[in-house]
Amino acid sequence: MKQIALLGFGTVGLGVYEIINQHRGLYFAGKETPAAIKWILVRDKNKRRAVNPTDCVLTDDFEDIINDDSVDIIISAMGGMEPEYTYIKKSLERGKHVVTANKEVICAHIAELTDLANKNNVKLYYEGAVGGGIPIISSIVETLKINKITKIQGILNGTTNFILTKMTKEMRDFDEVLKVAQDLGFAEADPTADIEGYDVMRKICILASLAFHTHAKTEDVHLRGISNITLDDVKMADTMGYDFKYIGQALLKDDKYSISVTPVLLPKDSVMCNVNQEYNVILLYGDIIGELCFMGKGAGKDATANAVVSDTIKALNEEDSGNHINFAETANSYGLSGIKNEYYIRASVKNYDQFEKVIDLASGAIKKNNLTYTNSKVFFTTELIRSSDMLSLYEQLRECADDVFYARMEHSLL
Amino acid sequence: MKQIALLGFGTVGLGVYEIINQHRGLYFAGKETPAAIKWILVRDKNKRRAVNPTDCVLTDDFEDIINDDSVDIIISAMGGMEPEYTYIKKSLERGKHVVTANKEVICAHIAELTDLANKNNVKLYYEGAVGGGIPIISSIVETLKINKITKIQGILNGTTNFILTKMTKEMRDFDEVLKVAQDLGFAEADPTADIEGYDVMRKICILASLAFHTHAKTEDVHLRGISNITLDDVKMADTMGYDFKYIGQALLKDDKYSISVTPVLLPKDSVMCNVNQEYNVILLYGDIIGELCFMGKGAGKDATANAVVSDTIKALNEEDSGNHINFAETANSYGLSGIKNEYYIRASVKNYDQFEKVIDLASGAIKKNNLTYTNSKVFFTTELIRSSDMLSLYEQLRECADDVFYARMEHSLL
Repeated sequence: MKQIALLGFGTVGLGVYEIINQHRGLYFAGKETPAAIKWILVRDKNKRRAVNPTDCVLTDDFEDIINDDSVDIIISAMGGMEPEYTYIKKSLERGKHVVTANKEVICAHIAELTDLANKNNVKLYYEGAVGGGIPIISSIVETLKINKITKIQGILNGTTNFILTKMTKEMRDFDEVLKVAQDLGFAEADPTADIEGYDVMRKICILASLAFHTHAKTEDVHLRGISNITLDDVKMADTMGYDFKYIGQALLKDDKYSISVTPVLLPKDSVMCNVNQEYNVILLYGDIIGELCFMGKGAGKDATANAVVSDTIKALNEEDSGNHINFAETANSYGLSGIKNEYYIRASVKNYDQFEKVIDLASGAIKKNNLTYTNSKVFFTTELIRSSDMLSLYEQLRECADDVFYARMEHSLL
Repeated sequence: MKQIALLGFGTVGLGVYEIINQHRGLYFAGKETPAAIKWILVRDKNKRRAVNPTDCVLTDDFEDIINDDSVDIIISAMGGMEPEYTYIKKSLERGKHVVTANKEVICAHIAELTDLANKNNVKLYYEGAVGGGIPIISSIVETLKINKITKIQGILNGTTNFILTKMTKEMRDFDEVLKVAQDLGFAEADPTADIEGYDVMRKICILASLAFHTHAKTEDVHLRGISNITLDDVKMADTMGYDFKYIGQALLKDDKYSISVTPVLLPKDSVMCNVNQEYNVILLYGDIIGELCFMGKGAGKDATANAVVSDTIKALNEEDSGNHINFAETANSYGLSGIKNEYYIRASVKNYDQFEKVIDLASGAIKKNNLTYTNSKVFFTTELIRSSDMLSLYEQLRECADDVFYARMEHSLL
């Protein structure tokens, strides 16, 4: 029987423990359990817990674990960069397979850690880091065996999808809905990582790194949060037959990538527009298979624990993990140039002078018969224009209008 | 280098050949190709072909292939029951791994062939048999390692989804749209297998067999085609905020299954309702992971060939195929009893007498304020009633009305 050590006994750690040691998962439920959790690393051994593991040893000292040669697999479920990054490195160096759901560590160190795993002849798995229970990492690894992947798009954060769903369905404004999400436990007291997109940024970078075989860096991501979406925007989108979704997108062209995390307007009759509440969805495009789309719960104890345990079963059988992929360390981002989109724009104007300046600036881009003026706000959509041109138009508009917001419009997404 | 024999050189066979031998697929594109196609079984060696394989031998005699001990893997891409069923059996008996996309053979013989593969210590793969390029078989195999799967629902036929999409979006009637689909090559000259549901029936039986560990039999399937959906129904559904989709459904309760293939009304703002044209979608429910949903092209040369080649790569590495599953041979269907749904019903009536009889019969089931009468037709929706009760109501209605149609209504499907 193989031995597992679990680092961290929070939500995900507890879920993993329940599936493996409490026999809720079928693989571990047979008479001869193929593996068991031997150690659990916790901060405080004496803390009162809802579940008290009796069939494994709790320790607050990582040295107990790393020095135990009988441990084959480390499941790392702590969160944050340190000390988890160090623990993962040490584990790989000591020849132990590592399974983790830590998106921060994987996003920052995917190339280095994959390399380290290969050098030590072990495997590194991180299915739980992106998309909760959706088997997106293994699907990308499988798809890559035959296809070149050139596009990934997705809703990768449950909190912001919950907020946007509620804003859209109930026509309520951002601050009000954020408060509800916090009260219900769907958003943290400090919601920055979610609503400003840092969480999605890390996830889309992990997917892009794997799919494009290059270490996609967060500093190359065009990142915009959702907190500037107003009820006016939601209503105007609705009138046009669109809803707002928060989309992470990674494109590949001539072996260079372009990654963005932005609010996007999707047609109401598209698949992705109807992925609501805490659900995640990921669309990928392979040159042979075409579009493939995966959907499921993006977070939560059981969904993420399922992904982690699924990886653990792979580790037990030393199955494919994508370890063979060589990540080019040179970041090759082509930024926003060369991408064309249609855009929705809203600008607040105080007087006719401001109104005129806005129209003058945007006149080359505005789609015919697509301008609305109401309550001191101008709304319009653009023709297909370069993303980089949109960005400079935005900067110019901000100089002459009080408040400016824009978002890409997509015609499909299935 | 391992040797492959390809049985059949039609659409899928050609796609497979292109990916493996013409280096369009990354796995086979390296300097040291891990495998190559040695034989191709064709009906007529001298037929003029768009692609003429030069790096393998064409034969019209299966004996050439089965007696070649250097062949490790048989890719069976012929179609129809015989002689493919016999060829697959012989291949397994001779210790060759088999990859097939033949849903007819797998649906009828999944238990027997899996057993035969195990006895001969080889593996049987059939990802291409269901959902085209969607990796649904491997996803079920993976999900089952941790979860008990109790529900599968999906749009599994591109032709009928194309027809229903066109009826719905363009408000055109069935016969007219079928003609368009035939002209475009989306429907066969004899469309029976698609529009009467035999194709979906086989696919959902394969998925149910695998997910429920029992050989689900086609004779247990509650099967209804889509040819009775009229433009009146499409319009009425639209008014209520629904569209028609053709859904295969497999449920598990107390280790007994219930399988149906029927037209279903889905809310326009559900994910599955927006899976249009030739796309397929499959939703499964696992007791730990919850709902998982997969979407992609359900047919076509490249999508299906991608699935078949993906299986071939698994066969080369002798990866998991679900072969370990023991299929109980006893069919344990619980039929329609115990399932409750709301229904949409349309009945044509010639006179007030007929009208009164229809209302009398249905009065116990009709939802309040949900009856419409127009152009000699009565439309209504029911409260939650037993599926078996709906079936007997339908039989009674048919006796007193000229034409009766009904369909299940779903509130979600994501």
